[in-house]
Order: sequence, then structure tokens, then C-alpha cells
Amino acid sequence: MPRTGIIAGSGGLPRLLADGLPEARVIAFEGTATDVPEHRLSRHRIERLGALFDDLRAAGVDRVVLAGAMSRPALDPAVLDPVMRDLAPRILQAMQGGDDALLRLVVGIFEEQGFAVIGAHEALPDLTCEPGVLAGPGPSEATRADIARAEAILAALGPVDVGQGCVVSGGLCLGIETLQGTDAMLRFVAETPDGLRGRPGGILLKRPKPGQDLRVDMPAIGPETARAAAAAGLSGIVVAAGRTLLIDRAALCAECDARGLFLLAERP
Amino acid sequence: MPRTGIIAGSGGLPRLLADGLPEARVIAFEGTATDVPEHRLSRHRIERLGALFDDLRAAGVDRVVLAGAMSRPALDPAVLDPVMRDLAPRILQAMQGGDDALLRLVVGIFEEQGFAVIGAHEALPDLTCEPGVLAGPGPSEATRADIARAEAILAALGPVDVGQGCVVSGGLCLGIETLQGTDAMLRFVAETPDGLRGRPGGILLKRPKPGQDLRVDMPAIGPETARAAAAAGLSGIVVAAGRTLLIDRAALCAECDARGLFLLAERP
Repeated sequence: MPRTGIIAGSGGLPRLLADGLPEARVIAFEGTATDVPEHRLSRHRIERLGALFDDLRAAGVDRVVLAGAMSRPALDPAVLDPVMRDLAPRILQAMQGGDDALLRLVVGIFEEQGFAVIGAHEALPDLTCEPGVLAGPGPSEATRADIARAEAILAALGPVDVGQGCVVSGGLCLGIETLQGTDAMLRFVAETPDGLRGRPGGILLKRPKPGQDLRVDMPAIGPETARAAAAAGLSGIVVAAGRTLLIDRAALCAECDARGLFLLAERP
Repeated sequence: MPRTGIIAGSGGLPRLLADGLPEARVIAFEGTATDVPEHRLSRHRIERLGALFDDLRAAGVDRVVLAGAMSRPALDPAVLDPVMRDLAPRILQAMQGGDDALLRLVVGIFEEQGFAVIGAHEALPDLTCEPGVLAGPGPSEATRADIARAEAILAALGPVDVGQGCVVSGGLCLGIETLQGTDAMLRFVAETPDGLRGRPGGILLKRPKPGQDLRVDMPAIGPETARAAAAAGLSGIVVAAGRTLLIDRAALCAECDARGLFLLAERP
């Protein structure tokens, strides 16, 4: 039986994983806020990764999930352990680059230490979903056209590695997700002057970019996404089946139903 | 000597044209707010386009510029003149579609009536600019890389007819212009949490989409663009030489200089 380690950051995902995998060893860095109850956590300093790896090995962990958001930590050079002294130059260099480079390095470090890095959806398959209408009435014909337009826009952006999400309403593009994330884009869309929008409604399309490492960076939506989409005047949310994490599916679907939004998972 | 008619909407452009072309006949619809002084204006009701065309012809106008933004007007069917009674069905139908379709129809109607439709930059060439650094110190090497990334993003979006503008900072895409326009995008970028931005600086790239009708829909920037770009923490603005309107170039360049922004016009 493989044993899973969870490296817990912020957001709802670490808690869902910890609850769904009662045998898992859950690690969080000192100073990282997480929803996982403190009694489930083993806390470690970022400067002492050697102790963290020893902890995981002693617990029989052979695969790890990197779950939730982590801010770039400050490193106190005075307290590095030998493992971290070896790794620090590579980590400091990667911190100068983008999030993707840093994440790739972190994945590589866990693998060098003998741990497989798996996605949250591999550790707990219920976190993603099969194709179909998961909530609400499903899309109208006009909405189908908006979905097709949103897909064309994200497909065009794939080669330049931008755009996990996009909002289209009445054929008009009202938002393209950039670094700030889905919720920020939906707040932006909500502020669109009424006179500019051709008609009410529209959809949010979320899906991974081509080449995105789904183990550590899968698109995710949750109940707050449904609330933000409703506040932006949209009529539905479209995700890629099997390639989007549903953070608290029951609450997400209930929120969609309550606000008259459909939630559609499309076949990839 | 050709005589120019200006159909004036809101924004700074109609006033610049009216001041730069003292011989021009300037028309505004009843109820449209415009910066052109009322004594320069000939006001017409949208329901009586026949009278508007007669006015232009009587003034010897053979070419018109559609300048500034116009909201979709309400039509009072009781007061349509014969010309407008003929046109109304096409106009009402185009109003159901996007702005582009409506604009194409309006251009077509002026052309059917015997007027050439020209761009503001054709009526007053000073409104656009030659290639070069127009303000500030010019881009650094790191900023050149941001410009190249922004160009790649807008090029990718060309085929789906999205994106007159884009913000890139430290290689990260912080904003893509959608229906709401450049200033809304820059306000969105300004709200980016500091922790997300890799480094300060970054650039705004503005340029037309492929196939955009530059006579009636050329990208434009002005002093408020420079203020918004500075508020978003950017280090410069890049436009397409000859294909971007500079609304009040002197004030724009002064604003850039005062805020330490460069303004670069690139060869198309």
C-alpha cells in the first residue's frame, strides 16, 4: 500500500486531501497558513528540508502531493541544514524566475529524494469529474456559441502559455485570465459597464494550458468561483472533465443550483 | 480642395480634429456629449439622417471622419425622415450584433450616400507618429524581453480577433485587453497583489488587431493612459508607429516624462 505525503499550502485543497486520506502524513512549513487542523500537521522549517525528508521517510511515505498555494518564503541562511545548504543555490536561482520554474525545481527535488510527485486527482480521484452537466439546466444554443468562442480564444493562447480561463458573453470576450487568477478576472468582468455588454449571461471557461503539469498546477474551481461567476452576471461555468479540480464538489454544485448557473464538464 | 466632415462623439479626438481642421463641418447627434464647443457644432437627430446628409452636402463635404465614442442611440420611430425610414431596418438589425457590425454598417451608409470615410490620421496626420522613442529613456534590455513577449501574446490572439493591448512584467502576463478597454485593464493590473509580481516595471503594448478597420477603430492613447500605466507600476508604453492615435501628443509625452515612463513607437 503506497503511503501519501501532503505538502499543505493555503486554500481548500489541502484540507480536502487530508480528510479524504486519513492515512496520509501532512506537512506544512512554519508560517504557512493552512486549513488543515494543526493536530494533523507536522510542521517544518523551509531551511531544514533534510528533516522534512527524514520525517516523510520515517512515516513510510513514498509519494507526495503538493497541494494549495504557497508564497515564496524568506530563507534564514543561519539555520540551513546540510541538505538545504546543498539545495539553496538552485532554489535561490529559481526564485528569480517565474512560478513555473520554481515549481519544476521543487518537483525535481522531491523526485531526487526518492519520492514520486503525484497530482491531487491521482491521490483522490473524486476531486475531479466525469463529462456531463453537474449542476443547473445545461447550456442553451446561444451559450454553446459562447463556449465555442471561448475555446477558440484559449486555444489561440496555448502556444504562448497564457490563459487558464476566459469569459465570453454574447460572442464578446469580457475577460482573459492572467497571473491574478480566476476570481480576480471575474471581479473585473463584474465591473463591466452595462452599456458595453451586448446581452446578459455568458460563460466562464476554465481549462489547463497545453503542457501544464497537472500534478502540481491543475485548474481548480470551488463554491466561491460559482458566487463570483454569478456576481459577474454569467449563466454557467465550463470545465475540462478529468482535468479540473472541484474544491468541495457538493458545495460547488449547490452554489451553482442556488444561483441558476449551470456547471458543465466537457470531454477533453 | 476636399472638405472634411467630422461626426463627433465623446473623448478627446473630435476636439483635436475640429481644432486642427478649422474648415471642417462638425456634426454631433442630439444628446451626444462632446468636447467640441457648441458653436462649432451642427446638431442633428439620429432619426433624421436625411437632414444630416443634406447639411454635409450643402457644406461641400465629400469625406467624413467618424471620431470618438458613441453610445447606441434610442430611436423614436415617430419622427423618422424618409432616408432614415429606409435605413432603419438595417440599423436595427445591426444593433443586435457587435460593435464591429454596427460600425461597418454606418461606414457603408456614408459611402452609399457618396461620402468617402477616412481615418482621423488621414484627416490630420499629426495624430499618429513615426517610429522612435517619443518620451523617456527608452526600454532596457529586460524590458525588450517583455515587449517581445507581449508581441507574441497579441500575435497569438490576432486570429480570434481579441486583444488591442497587453501588459507584461518580468515575463509574466498581467493583463490582456478585452471589451472594457485599455484603462480598465490598467486599473486591473494596478490591483495585482505585490507578492504575485516578480519584479517592478513592465510594459503596456497597444496595437491594432489584424483586419481592424483603422479608419474608424484605430488604437488610441492619451495622457490618461500614461497616468494609468504609471499607477499600474509600468516602466513604459509601446505603440505601433503610424497605427496608433496619440490623443494630445504634447500632454501625453509630458505626462510620460513626468512619471518616468518611456513611450516607444515601433515600426509595424
